This record gives sequence, structure tokens and C-alpha cells, in this order.
Amino acid sequence: MAGNSFGTLFRVTTWGESHGQGLGAVIDGCPPKIALSEADIQQMLDRRKPGSAKTGTARKEADQAKILSGVFEGQTTGAPIAVMIENKNVDSSAYQPYADLYRPGHGDYTYDAKYGIRDWRGGGRASARETAARVAAGAVAAALLKRENIHVTAYTRALGGIVCNGFDSAAIEQNMFCAPDMAAARKMEERVDAVKQAGDSLGGIVEVLAQGLPVGLGEPVFDKLDAELARALMSIGAVKGVEIGEGFAAAGMTGSAHNDPLAPEGFASNNAGGILAGISTGQDLVARAAIKPIPSIAIEQQTVDRSRHARSISVKGRHDVSAIPRVNVVCEAMACLVIADQLLRQKAIC
Amino acid sequence: MAGNSFGTLFRVTTWGESHGQGLGAVIDGCPPKIALSEADIQQMLDRRKPGSAKTGTARKEADQAKILSGVFEGQTTGAPIAVMIENKNVDSSAYQPYADLYRPGHGDYTYDAKYGIRDWRGGGRASARETAARVAAGAVAAALLKRENIHVTAYTRALGGIVCNGFDSAAIEQNMFCAPDMAAARKMEERVDAVKQAGDSLGGIVEVLAQGLPVGLGEPVFDKLDAELARALMSIGAVKGVEIGEGFAAAGMTGSAHNDPLAPEGFASNNAGGILAGISTGQDLVARAAIKPIPSIAIEQQTVDRSRHARSISVKGRHDVSAIPRVNVVCEAMACLVIADQLLRQKAIC
Amino acid sequence: MAGNSFGTLFRVTTWGESHGQGLGAVIDGCPPKIALSEADIQQMLDRRKPGSAKTGTARKEADQAKILSGVFEGQTTGAPIAVMIENKNVDSSAYQPYADLYRPGHGDYTYDAKYGIRDWRGGGRASARETAARVAAGAVAAALLKRENIHVTAYTRALGGIVCNGFDSAAIEQNMFCAPDMAAARKMEERVDAVKQAGDSLGGIVEVLAQGLPVGLGEPVFDKLDAELARALMSIGAVKGVEIGEGFAAAGMTGSAHNDPLAPEGFASNNAGGILAGISTGQDLVARAAIKPIPSIAIEQQTVDRSRHARSISVKGRHDVSAIPRVNVVCEAMACLVIADQLLRQKAIC
Amino acid sequence: MAGNSFGTLFRVTTWGESHGQGLGAVIDGCPPKIALSEADIQQMLDRRKPGSAKTGTARKEADQAKILSGVFEGQTTGAPIAVMIENKNVDSSAYQPYADLYRPGHGDYTYDAKYGIRDWRGGGRASARETAARVAAGAVAAALLKRENIHVTAYTRALGGIVCNGFDSAAIEQNMFCAPDMAAARKMEERVDAVKQAGDSLGGIVEVLAQGLPVGLGEPVFDKLDAELARALMSIGAVKGVEIGEGFAAAGMTGSAHNDPLAPEGFASNNAGGILAGISTGQDLVARAAIKPIPSIAIEQQTVDRSRHARSISVKGRHDVSAIPRVNVVCEAMACLVIADQLLRQKAIC
Repeated sequence: MAGNSFGTLFRVTTWGESHGQGLGAVIDGCPPKIALSEADIQQMLDRRKPGSAKTGTARKEADQAKILSGVFEGQTTGAPIAVMIENKNVDSSAYQPYADLYRPGHGDYTYDAKYGIRDWRGGGRASARETAARVAAGAVAAALLKRENIHVTAYTRALGGIVCNGFDSAAIEQNMFCAPDMAAARKMEERVDAVKQAGDSLGGIVEVLAQGLPVGLGEPVFDKLDAELARALMSIGAVKGVEIGEGFAAAGMTGSAHNDPLAPEGFASNNAGGILAGISTGQDLVARAAIKPIPSIAIEQQTVDRSRHARSISVKGRHDVSAIPRVNVVCEAMACLVIADQLLRQKAIC
Repeated sequence: MAGNSFGTLFRVTTWGESHGQGLGAVIDGCPPKIALSEADIQQMLDRRKPGSAKTGTARKEADQAKILSGVFEGQTTGAPIAVMIENKNVDSSAYQPYADLYRPGHGDYTYDAKYGIRDWRGGGRASARETAARVAAGAVAAALLKRENIHVTAYTRALGGIVCNGFDSAAIEQNMFCAPDMAAARKMEERVDAVKQAGDSLGGIVEVLAQGLPVGLGEPVFDKLDAELARALMSIGAVKGVEIGEGFAAAGMTGSAHNDPLAPEGFASNNAGGILAGISTGQDLVARAAIKPIPSIAIEQQTVDRSRHARSISVKGRHDVSAIPRVNVVCEAMACLVIADQLLRQKAIC
Repeated sequence: MAGNSFGTLFRVTTWGESHGQGLGAVIDGCPPKIALSEADIQQMLDRRKPGSAKTGTARKEADQAKILSGVFEGQTTGAPIAVMIENKNVDSSAYQPYADLYRPGHGDYTYDAKYGIRDWRGGGRASARETAARVAAGAVAAALLKRENIHVTAYTRALGGIVCNGFDSAAIEQNMFCAPDMAAARKMEERVDAVKQAGDSLGGIVEVLAQGLPVGLGEPVFDKLDAELARALMSIGAVKGVEIGEGFAAAGMTGSAHNDPLAPEGFASNNAGGILAGISTGQDLVARAAIKPIPSIAIEQQTVDRSRHARSISVKGRHDVSAIPRVNVVCEAMACLVIADQLLRQKAIC
Repeated sequence: MAGNSFGTLFRVTTWGESHGQGLGAVIDGCPPKIALSEADIQQMLDRRKPGSAKTGTARKEADQAKILSGVFEGQTTGAPIAVMIENKNVDSSAYQPYADLYRPGHGDYTYDAKYGIRDWRGGGRASARETAARVAAGAVAAALLKRENIHVTAYTRALGGIVCNGFDSAAIEQNMFCAPDMAAARKMEERVDAVKQAGDSLGGIVEVLAQGLPVGLGEPVFDKLDAELARALMSIGAVKGVEIGEGFAAAGMTGSAHNDPLAPEGFASNNAGGILAGISTGQDLVARAAIKPIPSIAIEQQTVDRSRHARSISVKGRHDVSAIPRVNVVCEAMACLVIADQLLRQKAIC
């Protein structure tokens, strides 16, 4: 159990390297008789595809998900569901210079120190490509959640310092940054153009919204719904912070301002982000993840090689300017996995 | 496994309610021959004691930790270490009004909905008192880390909107808020006085600093060191956000500003907070937790009772104005648990 | 996680040494609103008490179970249930000779080799006294099973080579060996008397019978109901073999003799012992455990001390002639834990 | 976590159905820098191949193991190792009659009851073919054990009631039943011929021998080395009993006969089978598994269909007469997994 599994009952194990045979996920614990097709998975996987936004690369990865087990006549059987995405047209030559050179902001140095061996091709296991397997697994979770009328979505809250105002759900699909604010999206475009020109990269904030949750999901004390979400989102390579509801802003509020009053018809506000004492309130669940800027940049940086000699590096090639919006669906997938797991855990005791 | 255990190899299980027989922790997986005494645990537990700061209550809880197993002649034996803290002088009568009334910002409503039964005495299992068991367990982890020359500490980064500038380690023990900035501490005192007067409460930010970590701790993909820390900190009832290194600020930075360059003598900066690709870099590990304001306030709020009738509530009695600084040692304890666990996991494979 | 926890959803963690402060169990994952009292636990624990049978010692252990958490107004709350049994009147002086001397058939040598430190008082963690915590936990599981109309019992199938014929359930409580065959019980008495006289000890076979199981419990592939039972029973120190249904006899049968035919009214036989492909059939579940003879005997044996010098040893004091029938309720408790866990796991998916 | 994973640190997750796309195993937690090739896995997998013994079918399954991840330049990297075995030339038509008919002794009835849906093609997930993934995973464990000079082997102790005398290791590869006794092997051949002629099947006993184990492996209390072995072996579909050392025979022995005396040069005997108090003694580890007769037989049996109507059934087609000796390598693989896991767990604490 070296960290490649996630979940207690709805449990996912992923495998694969960026330039190996492929990537995969095994989902163990999915209830039987859930409708599931390769198209369900493909649809979610396609949202991770590069090239749809200015922040992404021009490269065309034709990731195709294939279900290898656990589905019979269009339904899950209760057996483990193995999904595989083959790596195609892999050319590792562009990574050859980094076989002995540590890219700043990447895991090259720490992987080498930890394991004493490193598959440097395309970043190996530490590549962001690893998240494709998460999305495939998240799509299976989403199929389960669909049966329970739970719907999870993720969109861009901020990019390169430009923060969205309000929430215009229609806007999300109308701009290339998946931002719920068209005015902000236009500014993001300018910002991205400028930074790309400079050979630099950008971070941002992704917001995850889950609707339709019943009250009662989440296991106190250590496996609180928010604790599991925090782990889930922070486990994505690019994420450096996670907050629920008002989050860090709550640190500056008073109790009278932050507490959500209850009324016979329900809660009067949702500063808590849909979670109280680690358990869902039945309101909208709101979480945000801080995404660091892509570490691969053309601008020259100082680094060292495996022998600890000083070197300079300029990471060339087709690299995204920001993980946003491709990472959005990864956040969404992780949230689906958490909720599906907690749903089954709640069913076990009630 | 209903969420009361934490860790993979260094694994803690806690139990106990605020007004039951007591609270306890069972630590399974602690290596043998670690020096450990009740005084080691007591010392850490005393830092959670109320009354030491203006934010705390005047109440005197004389929490005494007792080691029930797993230690022989001053050393751990490899057997599970059970620690118990007896509840003394418990009087639940002050909580009788809340037996059927949901306190806003507390888990009363969600616990009732989840379990259909609720031990309302002192908040039951959802009480912040639960964290005493975490601190006891964290003290055992700290004893292990001490052998490895790893040192973890937590202090106040912000309180009631007042943010500390810089880091004056000497200051931490010189002000009642455990703030590393004496000037900020003085402003905090004024803020706390005013809010206490108003019958309201405050939140803040705790910073955790771990020093002496070797490079290589953390298990990709899902059990990254930062992911485990995020879960650990977010599992504390009062925490609404967690960030590592530059955290949410990273979302607004460019790659060239955020990346930490490497030099022959080590990293040139530490924006990453000591973690790259989920694995410790050997630098200082820096994490922050956003603490929400204490939900129990004297100011009148709207709520409902179990029958969903509208009611108003004013939570009287001795309540802290802020979880800070009592929660600091809880954050520290959780970080110790995470690091101890990852240390053993790394030993297993290398 | 050093092996002191058991179960996936209905999860027990035990702690304690023979001559320490006491023994305990924390049960995490018990559903809420199960009726549970200390008397329920005490009743099962009393069956482990010595002195009730000729095989047992004359010693009087007054084991008293105390519930420390997780129960409110006579019902479980969903919070972890901590149970403690205090060690009373402990005198370790009789064990002083074995502080540096390895008793054959005991874990003295292996514990020393594994941990480099050993709590030799009363056998420490390796004492059979450890099983008291299992019985306490099993009683909680039994309370859950009772709600589901599942009933588990254990009795003696063989002792000292004398095997019971048939199954006379009334006989079990009418003889001191808990044998379902009065004639066999009489022969066992003679055998025990003779062996006790010789300063030797005896083994035997315990049979566990679970009735009322629904069809469908058990998780293929690795967590089959029989696999979990095998682990559960084999984890009892005295057990050297486990079999289900016809067990080892099945190895000598043909398929036509072993297969249980199905008829519209149900299975026509039960050679499988109530489990097919790791899943309960809804028939009686039958498992047997082989119990080795008590290793502490008065007869002189050859051994070594910690310095590997040859020594001879004669273990004096009040020792049972056989673990049977005291171990029966331990087997029963372990079976209860397995079934309770599988029951919750099945509820989670169906 | 529906039972398709095994192990705590060296953790295997398997997937796949008999007539689906294939079978696979993901091994998470294998230390880095272990030499591993597809040939290592293939060699072990080939021993599971049918047709090598009279008990097996004439069918030719060309199972080819393919490593999909976790190995780089001939060595493990610490990343999860995915192994896949494609299903080739699958024709499910022979199983069509059993889509609605429950084969006695198989999991058809229990799977249907548990999940409400069943992939009947080739037995689906409940097929013995599932064990191919175990063997692939076991081969990875064996590669790790090789580095530690631990060697595990499995052979036939009994078949169809004919029990081997003594242990002639050379004989194992000289007879088609992998029996360490040539005389017994000859009798087995006669027995198999007769039973095959009658359209019936046979069971037997497999013995697993592990040599080179260090003293100290095994985690008390619940994860004892023997408990884990019992679970591991009993989780194989055909196994109905497991014993360690003298096993069930120990139940009839006295303490003076069963205890293994210690001498300065080591233990004087090995009745315990290499395990004391759940921890390896450093001696040979000896375990046995009782294998039930193959349930698929040509002889007509009574059964029911999904609508509970009485039916008769005669399972035609190429079926093995006995799981022995094909199941031997499966037992060996499971033992390798258990030992590898306990080895890493011991490294973590010592």
C-alpha cells in the first residue's frame, strides 16, 4: 500500500507512467447493477483533453478508455472494474535531457532521493498524466452518484490572479477557461497570452460544487467529509491549498457572522460549505483548490544534475500555461470518489 | 472503521465523549524501544489546557494522561499503547437545553440526522474535547520523531484578522496567543477583549513547522505527504482550510516566481513548503490551517429544535473566544502523526 | 497498524498485557441504536472464566468489563465503543524466572527476536489473557447479530483425542467440557485427570456454528467469508488449524459425494459448511479450529535462556490442562466479529 | 474495498473474469530496485497451465503475462506494478446452459443472491481462472523474497485419499502430480484414471514449505503470520481447510509431545511449523491446504434454476479431475504474498 489506492469502500487503485504501456484504474467496491459504459468514462476523460483552452498545449492526446472487467451487459456486477487507457505515440526523446537533470518545481529530485531509481520518460509516475486514471475512476463514481441524484461539477474560480465574480453557470461552457464569469474570462485570456509570450506559466483556483447530497455523509472523527475532500484534492500534484465554504476567509470572521442560522425551512446561509462537524448538511457542498503555476517553463532557471553540479535549464516543448482548466475535471473526479465512498459507508451503518 | 482511526503503519484509534468516562487513544504500530513516559504525554497535553490565554475559558480541566499498555520499563514494546484521560467533575446540566436544540455552527443537527441518536452531554463525540486524545497520540509520535531528530511546532499566524509579520520564534512563548510577532500579539489582545465583550468569537490561522525531515517522506499518488497533512488538519473540527508553502498565494504567482531553484548547496527558496510531488524535500515543512470562529456565542441566533420549530439560542457558559491558541498543539499533534506514519512507510521500502 | 486491529467496517482494536493496567477493546463502526449493556458483555466474558471445568485452573479471575464510551441511554451511538477490563491482584513474581528463559511452545523467543524487548510479566501481550478483549468485542458484535436474528455458538468437538459423536445441543451445558456428547464428556474427564496427574496438557477441537445467516455474506476474492473466518480463528494463539464444513475430509472425497445438491426447498446437504465461493448460502455455517495442547507443563523440558545457554524448565503454578473449553467462547467471539463485519459490508453495496 | 485486495504494505489488487478482456493484478508497495522481468512472471504462471498432469484438462491456455507499469530498465521503481493476462480465444457458448442454472458446488447460486446479477460466462469472477492473477502477483513477491534469500515451494501431500510418505524433493518434478513420493504418485495415477472414467472428481492436500525466513516475521495479535497464511490459502476457491505444522494432529497430542524444545544450536523439532505466537521462528514454515474435489462433474446431479425449479445437470466439457497439481502454484503464490508483506511490515518497525 504505497499510496496508489484511494477510498475505504468505494476503493480505487491506479497505475501507470506517462510513457509506459498505459494508465489504469481498478475500482473495487462499486455496487452491482449500476449502468456503466465506456462512453460514460470517455465523456469525462475528454474534458481533460488538451487543446480546448488557450492555457493548454496544442498536442492531441487521443486518450481512449477501455473497460476490461466488472461490467456485464451494460451494468456493473460487483466485481472490480478495471479501466485502461493505452499510451499511444509515445516519444521519450524530448525528456532525455532531464534523465539526469532536476526540473525545478517537479518531483525529479524527490523521486530520485526516495527510490534511488526514476523513470524519467515523460515524468514517469509523477506526470500529470497520472490524473487520467483518476478521471476514469471518477466517472465510475459519478455513475453511482447519478443513481442517487447527486451531481458534482468543477469550474474555474480564479486564473493568474483574476478572480471570478459571482456564479454564472451558463458562462462556464461559453469560455475556454470554464469560468462562471464572462468578464473575468476575457481578462484571463489577455493574461494568458502575455504570460505565454514570456515563456512563463500561471496558477489559479478551482471550485468544486456538489449538489443533491443527503444530510449525514461523512465519518467523524478522522474521516470527516471535509478531511477526505482535502486529502483528495491535495493529492493532485498541482494543488497547494484546499478550503471548504468560506475557508481561509472564515479565519477573519466572527462567530456571529460565520455561523449558519437554522430555520424550519432549512439553513439560512451556507458559510460552512455544506459540512458541519465533518458531516454533510444536505446543502450545496463547496470546496476550492489552489493550483500552483505549471513548473515547466521556457524561462531559464537554476538547477542541479544528479551529481549535484550547478546547471541551468529551460524546459522547451509543448507545455500548458496553466493546469486550469484541464485540472478542473480531475478535482471533480476526486470529489466524486470521496462522495461515493462516504455514501457507501453511510449505507453500511444506517 | 467509522473514521476513528488515523494512519497506515503508525495508526491511532481514538474514543470517548466529552462527558463520558473519559477519552482515549490506542497507538498501534509504534516501533519498540522508544523512550516514553506519562510525563512526555502530559507535557504536550498541558499545552491544550484552557486558561493560559485570554481566548480561553477560565475553567480548569485537570486532564491527566495515563498509559495503560505498551510501555515496559520506560520503553515502548511494539505492543499497542493505550492512553486514557479520565473525565472528571463532569456536569452535563448546562447542556440539557441543547438536548433538543441545534446549536448553529455545531454538529448537533448533522449528528442527529446521521445517527438518529445523539449524546448531547457536552457535545458528546463532536466536542472539541475529542482532540485531547489526538494530542496524547501525537505525543507518542513526537517521541518517535525525537529519535529521528525531527521537530514539529505550531504557532499562531493570525487571529481575528490580525496577521503576524515575520517569524520571531522567541516571541511565541512570550505572549498568550503563541504568536511569533509581539506587536501583532498586542493588537490581538485588544481585538479579543472587544469581541469577548460583545459575546462573539474569533477565528484565525495556525502555522505548523516541521524541521529535520529527511528527503523522501510521502507516498505518491494519493498518500502524498501534503495530502495526508491536509486530511490530518482538516479533520480537526474547527479547520476550514489547509495550505502548504505559499498555498493559496501560489494560485496568483507565475511559475518563474513560484518554482524553487536548486543549487549545489540545496534549494534556493521554499515556496513549495518543503514538499515536491508529495515527497519531502528535506527543507522545512510549512503548513497552515484556517480556524473558524468558535460557534458557541452569547449573541442570540436563530435555530430550530428537533421538531424543526423555530427557536432562538444564546449559548451561555464558559466558552473560549477562539480555538487559538489551544488548537495549535492539536495541529502540531496531527502533523506529528502524519510524519511518524510516513517515516515508517518509507523505512518499509528502503 | 501492527496487527492489533480486526475487521473492515465493524473494526476492533485491542490493547493490553497480562500484568499491565488492564485489557481493552475499541470497537469502531458499530451501527447506532443497538441495545448494549455491560451485562451483555459480562455474560460472554464470564464464559471465559477459569475454574468452571476440570481443564481450567483453580484461580479466580474476576474480570469485569466496563463500557467507557459509545453507549448512551442503553444504546450504541455510532461513536467508538471502548471497553476495558482492569487487571486486578496482579503478581508477576511467579514469572520472574522466565524473564530470561524461553518457555517452549510460547512466544518468548520470537517476541524477543522480533522486538528486542519483552514484557515477560504474565506473558505480556502474548498471554492468552489477551483474548478477554476479543470476547468483549465479540459481545458487541453478538448484540448487532442478535438484531439480525443471527446466532453463533461454539462447543467442544474433541479433547485429548476423544471425539464427540453427533450433536446433542442439550449436553453442551450439562458437562464441564462443553461437549455435545455426554458419553464423550465422561471419557474426556478420565483423560484430563490422568494427564493432569502426569503434569502434561491436552489439545482438542472447537466447533463453531452460526445460524440464521442470510445468503450473500462474504466478499470475493480475498475476503471470502471462509478466508476471514480462517484468519480470525487462526489468530487465536492456541489454534493450529481451521476447516470449514467437511474440511480436511473433503480432500478425500469425490465431487459427486462432496457437492451439495440444490432442490426447490433448498440445499439437500451441507458438506460445504454454509459457504460457496466464499459467500454464505443461508445454511448453517460450520467451522472447526484445532487447538494445540497448553505449552506450560510441569514436565521438565529442554530450553535456552536469552544468552542461548542450555537450561531445563518445568513450568509450575496454576495452569490449565487444556485451553478447551475456555477458548470456545473466544472462537465464538471471533466468528461474531467476522460475521458482523461482512454483514455491514454487504449492507453497503446492496 | 470489496475483497479484491490483499496485503497491508505489499498490497495486491486483482481484477478480471474468466471470459472478459483478461485478468490482471496491480501490486502496490513493492520496494524499488528489485530485478523483475516478464519471464520471471511467466515461469511461475506456466506452472498453472493445464495439460501437464493427468488431472488437468487437455485444453491449451496460452496465458501470457505482460508488465504494464512499475518496471524501468529491468528493475521495479516503487510505482505500482500492473500485470495483465489477456483472455484469448474465449468461447462462452458452452456456458450458456448455466446462465440460469446453478451448478452444485459452484458459486452460481450465492453470486446471484449476493449481487442480483451474474456474469455466467466461464464462471465470471468466480472462475478458478481468477487465480492466474494471484500467481502473477505472487511471482513479483517471489522476486522480492529471492533478494532476501527466502524460498517458497508447494507440492502435493495427498490426492484422492492417497497420502505421500516422507518428502523426496527430487520426486516432485518426476511425477505429474508433483508428489514428493514416487510410489504414492503411481497410486494417484490409477485413482485419477478410475475417477475420470466415472465422470467424477477428486480432492487432495497441498503442502507449502517456506525456507530461509528470518526469525521475527508476523504481527500479533490479529495479523499473526499463521493467521495471514490461513486467510491467504482459504481465500483460494477450492480450499476448505488450512493447518500449520502438526495442525489438526496437534489437537490429539500432549504438550510434552507437541512443544518444540530449544537448544543452543536451535529448535530440536518443528511441530509448530515454524511459527510461535504468530511470529516466524526462523525454521521451515510448513502449511497445508485441504483442496475440495472439482465441483464440475459429468455425473448427473440435482439442482435448480434461477426460478427455483428442480433440474438435473451434468457438467460436460473439458474439466480437470482435480485442482491438484495446478492449484499448488496458487498456494505457493499466496504464501509468497503473505511473507513479502510481513517482511516489509517488520522492516518498518525494526
